[in-house]
Amino acid sequence: MKKLINSPDDVVRESIEGMILAHGDLLKAHYEPNVIYRADAPLNGQVALVSGGGSGHEPMHGGFVGLGMLTAAAPGEVFTSPTPDQMLEAAKLVDGGAGVLNIVKNYTGDVMNFEMAAELANSEGIAVRNILIDDDVAVKDSLYTAGRRGVGTTVLAERICGAAAERGYDLDRIADLCRQVNINGRSMGMALTSCTVPAKGSPTFELGEREMEIGIGIHGEPGQARMDMKSADEITEMMALEIINDGAYSRTVREWDSEAEDWKEVEITDPPFASGDRLIAFVNSMGGTPVSELYIVYRKLAQICDQHGLTIVRNLVGPYITSLEMQGASITLLKVDDEMLALWDSPLNTPALRWGM
Amino acid sequence: MKKLINSPDDVVRESIEGMILAHGDLLKAHYEPNVIYRADAPLNGQVALVSGGGSGHEPMHGGFVGLGMLTAAAPGEVFTSPTPDQMLEAAKLVDGGAGVLNIVKNYTGDVMNFEMAAELANSEGIAVRNILIDDDVAVKDSLYTAGRRGVGTTVLAERICGAAAERGYDLDRIADLCRQVNINGRSMGMALTSCTVPAKGSPTFELGEREMEIGIGIHGEPGQARMDMKSADEITEMMALEIINDGAYSRTVREWDSEAEDWKEVEITDPPFASGDRLIAFVNSMGGTPVSELYIVYRKLAQICDQHGLTIVRNLVGPYITSLEMQGASITLLKVDDEMLALWDSPLNTPALRWGM
Repeated sequence: MKKLINSPDDVVRESIEGMILAHGDLLKAHYEPNVIYRADAPLNGQVALVSGGGSGHEPMHGGFVGLGMLTAAAPGEVFTSPTPDQMLEAAKLVDGGAGVLNIVKNYTGDVMNFEMAAELANSEGIAVRNILIDDDVAVKDSLYTAGRRGVGTTVLAERICGAAAERGYDLDRIADLCRQVNINGRSMGMALTSCTVPAKGSPTFELGEREMEIGIGIHGEPGQARMDMKSADEITEMMALEIINDGAYSRTVREWDSEAEDWKEVEITDPPFASGDRLIAFVNSMGGTPVSELYIVYRKLAQICDQHGLTIVRNLVGPYITSLEMQGASITLLKVDDEMLALWDSPLNTPALRWGM
Repeated sequence: MKKLINSPDDVVRESIEGMILAHGDLLKAHYEPNVIYRADAPLNGQVALVSGGGSGHEPMHGGFVGLGMLTAAAPGEVFTSPTPDQMLEAAKLVDGGAGVLNIVKNYTGDVMNFEMAAELANSEGIAVRNILIDDDVAVKDSLYTAGRRGVGTTVLAERICGAAAERGYDLDRIADLCRQVNINGRSMGMALTSCTVPAKGSPTFELGEREMEIGIGIHGEPGQARMDMKSADEITEMMALEIINDGAYSRTVREWDSEAEDWKEVEITDPPFASGDRLIAFVNSMGGTPVSELYIVYRKLAQICDQHGLTIVRNLVGPYITSLEMQGASITLLKVDDEMLALWDSPLNTPALRWGM
């Protein structure tokens, strides 16, 4: 294993320390349990946005803490769910009296720990909502999760809901918005190479010289198929059509019922994409794929969307939800309305994404 | 070779097409010869900033075209100098009557072709200055260049001079500023893995399972030494001390003498860094190294600068001058004054970097 690290045990801590040294104007850190949060938090009367998950997907989530996006991030060990006390600490650090929205990617460990954290925070008098992101059309169930995995739409949800918090949306309204972003978003990914988790020291899986994995998850979870390499256009078409042609997807999720002070089951169905829809298109590098190749993917994606009557009104191209140094890419399409677009365009200032300031 | 491409011959063209589809609000492209330029160019009465070089270093340079940075970029084939007609076309497309500053990385082919382009542009009545960036302290001469190679300082020079152009600096003043940024900047890089140029299809070089190359160039040119892997702190210290302890470096460069309408020889000496200096610190990924590892490098770099009485007043951490999917990192330190800092902070809107808008 060759990495720019000191010891596998210190990777997460030292990386956070470096972030704080680089972005001390924006961020602070709490250690043990680890939380990265806005230097100006808590923001009185403003809903706080918290996300978290295993490390190794940087810049998600720590790089998205700042004005117009997350209020705090709870980074677990590499590819390991953060513990409930991390999310509880995050909630306590950033709650400004208007409550906390937890954006949770659908992995069994994340969901369980975020639920436990929500109950603990509620018992300490902090209003909390957990909204699940489960946008990966590649697999329905996997080793890591029941239902679809949470991937690229997470980045877009964090941005749109973060902007809504800045505008003063209350907790219920932001939770509704976040659920709607998830319902409107779909993703799929692929890999050309594996990545190596520092604590393990060897590649998570092996792909042959001419093989790729289609439908892979962000921890290297197996996808739909392992197949011979194809051209960028063919790969883009496979993923884009899988996303665009994905029909209604229904499931039951657990959301907190604040009146009953208990979890309730909520029925959700994602409507399919339809001609005339406006989209944010997000082409993401798994980490090791150069941005020049992402633009080749984006080129084909734009052509395919055009052929389907889907209008890309905004885009994001770059390494934003990664799997360490894995080579590969993912595509996320999010159907947007005027409200989401206005929020997308509002001022944003985080280490990883900045505009409109 | 596994890459998200269609054919090696189409990589540059299709990547530019994707960029234009994604960033049509900011950019336009001219094909054959290939130029990426600001959609709002030419800007009347404003000095135009042009850079270029081989492709494969994205987002440099095309991703830096936009408000507050480059007016145009001339991307060659992968790791191949752009041709003089590309830079001439760029000058003709973006000259707003106030002349063109070419920012040229010190590689023999780039220098020669930018000089030829400058003479051609001058003969067509466009005032041109060429300023060389030669900031790599690792090697004095190499297969690719006489003198030091041009690397990370290029990104910082493009930003600072681009901001100066927005403020209405005239051509002579911007050329002086660019020369000063180069004089004040020093860089060094290292690699953990090679990259694969699409047209060749196999890695540029081979590194053993436990080897790294220190002082490597951005095309995979050999550096100072191949050695056993060390920790991130040790690697950072090696590079940072080489940069900080680098003494005065003198050389003669060719700059255009507009009165004599000919090239003149200019003597330049870089002063060493001294305690009390203020710096922009730039920790760059060679492409395949995750940003989480860059922050581990930045953490140590900040400690070392502090120990030497050097104050980091701004920083840039990310993949900005890359070598395709190569794993590794480079460090650039730039001594700044109030003027450069004010320019650094001014509004910036490009595909790869945006702030203060």
